[in-house]
Amino acid sequence: MKAEIISIGTELLLGHVINTDAAFIARELATLGFDLKNMQIVGDNAMRLKEALETALKRSDIIITSGGLGPTDDDLTKETVAEFLNLSLEENAECKKALLEYFGDREAGPNQLKQTFIPKGSKVLKNPHGTAPGCVVPAGGGKFICILPGPPKELLPMLKNELSPFLAGLTGKTIKSTQLKVFGPGEGKVAELLKDLTRNVNPSVATYASDGEMFVKISVATSDNEEALNLMEPVVAQVRDRLGNFIYGRDVSNLEEVVVKLLIKEKLHLATAESCTGGLVSKRITDVAGASAVFHLGVVSYANKAKEKILGVCPETLARYGAVSSQTAREMAEGIRNLANADFGIGITGIAGPDGGTTEKPVGLVYIALAGNETHIKKMEPHGRYPGREAIRNKAASTALDMLRRVLLGLPISEDF
Amino acid sequence: MKAEIISIGTELLLGHVINTDAAFIARELATLGFDLKNMQIVGDNAMRLKEALETALKRSDIIITSGGLGPTDDDLTKETVAEFLNLSLEENAECKKALLEYFGDREAGPNQLKQTFIPKGSKVLKNPHGTAPGCVVPAGGGKFICILPGPPKELLPMLKNELSPFLAGLTGKTIKSTQLKVFGPGEGKVAELLKDLTRNVNPSVATYASDGEMFVKISVATSDNEEALNLMEPVVAQVRDRLGNFIYGRDVSNLEEVVVKLLIKEKLHLATAESCTGGLVSKRITDVAGASAVFHLGVVSYANKAKEKILGVCPETLARYGAVSSQTAREMAEGIRNLANADFGIGITGIAGPDGGTTEKPVGLVYIALAGNETHIKKMEPHGRYPGREAIRNKAASTALDMLRRVLLGLPISEDF
Repeated sequence: MKAEIISIGTELLLGHVINTDAAFIARELATLGFDLKNMQIVGDNAMRLKEALETALKRSDIIITSGGLGPTDDDLTKETVAEFLNLSLEENAECKKALLEYFGDREAGPNQLKQTFIPKGSKVLKNPHGTAPGCVVPAGGGKFICILPGPPKELLPMLKNELSPFLAGLTGKTIKSTQLKVFGPGEGKVAELLKDLTRNVNPSVATYASDGEMFVKISVATSDNEEALNLMEPVVAQVRDRLGNFIYGRDVSNLEEVVVKLLIKEKLHLATAESCTGGLVSKRITDVAGASAVFHLGVVSYANKAKEKILGVCPETLARYGAVSSQTAREMAEGIRNLANADFGIGITGIAGPDGGTTEKPVGLVYIALAGNETHIKKMEPHGRYPGREAIRNKAASTALDMLRRVLLGLPISEDF
Repeated sequence: MKAEIISIGTELLLGHVINTDAAFIARELATLGFDLKNMQIVGDNAMRLKEALETALKRSDIIITSGGLGPTDDDLTKETVAEFLNLSLEENAECKKALLEYFGDREAGPNQLKQTFIPKGSKVLKNPHGTAPGCVVPAGGGKFICILPGPPKELLPMLKNELSPFLAGLTGKTIKSTQLKVFGPGEGKVAELLKDLTRNVNPSVATYASDGEMFVKISVATSDNEEALNLMEPVVAQVRDRLGNFIYGRDVSNLEEVVVKLLIKEKLHLATAESCTGGLVSKRITDVAGASAVFHLGVVSYANKAKEKILGVCPETLARYGAVSSQTAREMAEGIRNLANADFGIGITGIAGPDGGTTEKPVGLVYIALAGNETHIKKMEPHGRYPGREAIRNKAASTALDMLRRVLLGLPISEDF
């Protein structure tokens, strides 16, 4: 069945409010197996809402509106829908009771009471978190206009608890989906490797890039849980087959979560010595709840003196090879491993820019060392245009975490396609 | 002039992505004096994009699309707009040059190169933050279709620096705006204090919350620069008058930028000792380019042993008062200040949760110490519902930075309304 969302509110057109409601509703519709092809946004204006309803009813079976249910004069969604469908508005006794209870000993004025009027023949959607109930209005030909309030704290529970069960009854379907997280290859490479799969419909395969990483989402719509797995797993296997060890997890949040869990499982400890990343690796590690079991010490040694004094990097190494060198990265990693008495030490030194680069050592050059039983070193070099300080720091931190993941799992530290 | 936004992307219809782009564009259009009456959202589908364009061109003068400009096969905005307007796509030499520069010594495949084709007769909008340029396509009758990329970090600068000046030329107006950044009072408090001002139209005053901070944006639309200042400055003064020292900067990025600049100016050094924030303060400090002049050393002392061994916190203090105590915070701050031979030391210790709290020391309890000529300590306590690990860590880090700002400026370390 085709669905469409109409978000109502002048504040959306002024950009004062970000339309999070639409994303919530969209996700719920996808899960229930509805086909959402269009969304519209209009202000608090009866004429334009009618135009939007007319367009929507022509092409969609289920129309969900959000917003315009409150007590003020410019809240006119129910009134406009009723007029559009030639229905009268009727006071609903149950809604009135709920509203009066909500107000308790405060007086509910006529503006408040208008919220208890709903289009004749509609099904009420209760609102335990606000004053305005929603409703489902039959629009003829098996089509429905579903009216929800605007504030997310009212809309979300009403969507989940009141509207979804009604909608699920219409399709009899659910959606299962799973995500594979990828670090290493870029967006273009992943798209190329999965090109044929991303044309599939059920299961569908989609790729997304965020913060220098990629994820692959595989979704399947069926009315049967077992069939869902039977359809999904072969596709998951195909994606795994093509992306191999570059997949760092399934249905996990991020690299740091994977690494912290592996360390906890193996009862191993990590310590970090960071220069250009300035604490980003330790920040990401300690973003994970429970990291204190595996992470005891991190040092941000921005100055050479700090590298010598705290981490024990040799002054000769710094003098001969410079602070940004594989030798310094190695001594930082090995130094922090010793200092913290940890199983692994990460050492990162580089030039995140925008200034501080030379011809020999350009902005974007970063050395990442991982000291364990042996020490591995990776070199990150600039390509083309400067991607910015944040991107360089993020990639260096992710590379360090991925190196540790690979060592913990006994995978090769570097791989090419 | 009437404007309309068409957001393009199947990920929007699946609810995987929240449409922040539309709010950015809407705000910019309002500021430039355009009348935005409708927004539409469609998937990566040529037929439905054409339907949306047709509807939009009937009722609006300026149509702004976002999304569908990337290298993959389902990125088809430019192709579809060209077909819709019966225009051919032509390779743009300047865009090709920029793309090849972006790729440097990596190879740019045909999928990448297709991004350099734009509809004949369009004006190019440069994209220094990505591979896909935007463009403004004349649609006849003085109407235009303006094509922007989807990722916010590409769309925002293109909107501000490339498209807005073009659009301002159409209305003959320009918008000047200024932002006052605020740390301390919450969203409700700021809204209450500025209630009357936020009802103004020109200059308009809007408040926004993000990452535990607030900002107040004052915008004025005029065709005359001097008049803009004459209108804007008295309102800026009013806002300053009401929010006082809680305003930490005007037209600055964030607290860390303000603090690093103050330290550079005064030639002073900072060192950090972090427990529950896990490196977030040092990460934020070193986010600022040039931080190496004022920041040499940070320590993330997650374990008690690290606090003793590296920072010199007394074992007796830890035994008697615990790791999460004002005494430990003080010794961490003073310890790192000594170790780094710095002018200021920050020490943070607390419980970010979700686990690890007790009745006496609940999740959300954080002590923040700033050691300079004297040592100041602030206590953060939980209120109501658990805001999450990230929010607690962010607030603790911002509090530390704000304490340092206040000391550097000779302001009281704590203030109430």
